[in-house]
Amino acid sequence: MVKSIIFALNIITLIMKLIGELEKIISQYFKDNLIEGSPAELYNPINYILALGGKRARPLMVLMSYNLYSDSVNDVLSLAKAIEVFHNFTLIHDDIMDKAPLRRGSDTVHIKWNENIGILSGDAMLIKAYSLLEDLSPEILKNVFLAFNKTAIEVCEGQQLDMNFETRNDVTIDEYINMITLKTSVLLGASMKVGAIAGGAEQIDSNKLYDFGKYLGLAFQLQDDYLDLYGDTEKFGKRIGGDIVANKKTFLTLKAFQKADNNELVELNNLFASSNLSIFEEENKIEKARTIFNKLGVVDCMKKEIEKYYELSLQSLASVNVAEGKKAEIRKFAESIISREV
Amino acid sequence: MVKSIIFALNIITLIMKLIGELEKIISQYFKDNLIEGSPAELYNPINYILALGGKRARPLMVLMSYNLYSDSVNDVLSLAKAIEVFHNFTLIHDDIMDKAPLRRGSDTVHIKWNENIGILSGDAMLIKAYSLLEDLSPEILKNVFLAFNKTAIEVCEGQQLDMNFETRNDVTIDEYINMITLKTSVLLGASMKVGAIAGGAEQIDSNKLYDFGKYLGLAFQLQDDYLDLYGDTEKFGKRIGGDIVANKKTFLTLKAFQKADNNELVELNNLFASSNLSIFEEENKIEKARTIFNKLGVVDCMKKEIEKYYELSLQSLASVNVAEGKKAEIRKFAESIISREV
Repeated sequence: MVKSIIFALNIITLIMKLIGELEKIISQYFKDNLIEGSPAELYNPINYILALGGKRARPLMVLMSYNLYSDSVNDVLSLAKAIEVFHNFTLIHDDIMDKAPLRRGSDTVHIKWNENIGILSGDAMLIKAYSLLEDLSPEILKNVFLAFNKTAIEVCEGQQLDMNFETRNDVTIDEYINMITLKTSVLLGASMKVGAIAGGAEQIDSNKLYDFGKYLGLAFQLQDDYLDLYGDTEKFGKRIGGDIVANKKTFLTLKAFQKADNNELVELNNLFASSNLSIFEEENKIEKARTIFNKLGVVDCMKKEIEKYYELSLQSLASVNVAEGKKAEIRKFAESIISREV
Repeated sequence: MVKSIIFALNIITLIMKLIGELEKIISQYFKDNLIEGSPAELYNPINYILALGGKRARPLMVLMSYNLYSDSVNDVLSLAKAIEVFHNFTLIHDDIMDKAPLRRGSDTVHIKWNENIGILSGDAMLIKAYSLLEDLSPEILKNVFLAFNKTAIEVCEGQQLDMNFETRNDVTIDEYINMITLKTSVLLGASMKVGAIAGGAEQIDSNKLYDFGKYLGLAFQLQDDYLDLYGDTEKFGKRIGGDIVANKKTFLTLKAFQKADNNELVELNNLFASSNLSIFEEENKIEKARTIFNKLGVVDCMKKEIEKYYELSLQSLASVNVAEGKKAEIRKFAESIISREV
């Protein structure tokens, strides 16, 4: 009796915050809470990369997922930040490994400082991500910790697979999907999951929210691959065709190889064997790739694949045992991910 | 009444294991429990560096500390391994930063594979160190987690200070002691502390055991600095005078600069400005350093400093509220650290 009254009160009083509100809360929290410590050489790079911004999609997912169960979202800002700090640790180290000069239009950490600082401040960030979990109660900490560890090691495995694929010519589409699942999607899954755990969700539901995030993450990464070749230069904010120039094996390329007949295979092999080209030759290469991709209909295949994972994510969300009305913002978020042009 | 009987039984039945026994248990556990996973490129380097061995002093400290409170030492092997895995993560990344070709007489990870593999497998090791805490009960996990996070970030801070000192000529002895405290000693302190926490020690005692480990760690590191210049080449297993050749500012050098008169300062400055020497010149430099150090009596100062920290460690141990008889092996361990010649 008492329990059902409390339950009813919960339904009435739980206020679902809008995406825009949550984004403002997150942004303010990040501005007000730097990662402080000494020596400065260790901590400045950490706050530098965090200040470069980004969409803060992962903290938003933590808060939205938690908000399904509780409206005191301020209580999980530290948890949300842990996920973002972890994500940015991977960016610092990945940028060293990829020898990337730019991140979000600014110098990468190892360029602005040096590689040693990049390695060490990345390490410190990974530790600080764990430290941000310290305020959780022992029982919630344990479950969040398990999810966090599992995901963190998977992200490393995904990055290693990505590096392995650079020197392999026999990567299958299944292997590619597995790689991007590990490298990108599981962290979006974990963002939803830890938010749900902190909110007190049943395990079955926190797992469904994990699946929602994971599938949405796959749709997101495939959309990213698509935009790399078919995006609008101005809107996308970076050069179109970068993956093609770098001979990166994304879904588009792998699908093209799969659908090509013998003549087209020769053409594709020649195209993806070329490197160190002039800008003019690079533009030519990108155009040729687009032509053969269009001919083979790989964009349609990709759109179907994106649609497939988007549908799977929505199905997972629909099966979560929470009133449908509460899921509106999460559905809106998923839609924005899928329909984005940048 | 019941409580005091249980207490009496505990005193009677608690078996203090000998260092040799504990070392065997640790060695077997490490052999039987590799860090497994896929892809191999990520996990092989992890098991490679762990198999290079080392004294396993940190896991031994975890077990000895736990053994003050419980004799089921098998229950904390995973915790002991977490500390050793963390320590080896720092070795992989430090070796990249120091451009070190050899570790325990074998190729370092970044030489055997490459730097990217070194960075990423180090990251994976740090995460796996955390994963090894997963079996702890929620309450113990929380306290171990707090100690682990604090220590881990301090080790990073120590490494950053060490790098900063390379380009500074005004490092004080206090700053040097602070740096080696962070880089080396706090992890020995934490090894004792987490063992005590897992054993159910009162907080005041786990902190005293932390202090024991920290002070012993300082004595250990200073002994290391001493052996680098005054050790027996054959026993020490590496070249004597490496720190002098590399112009590293250890306690000996800093003390010499502190005690030198104007003429000796000129001599020291000239000595420590030289680099890229021939082997013959290097031997000459080492001999000159030894001569001036002997003249200035810095070895005596160092021995006093080592003795000071050793005494502080024994005092901390003595103040732990556990029957003195149980501490015999820990005292023996401390003695072996301080009297070692390798």
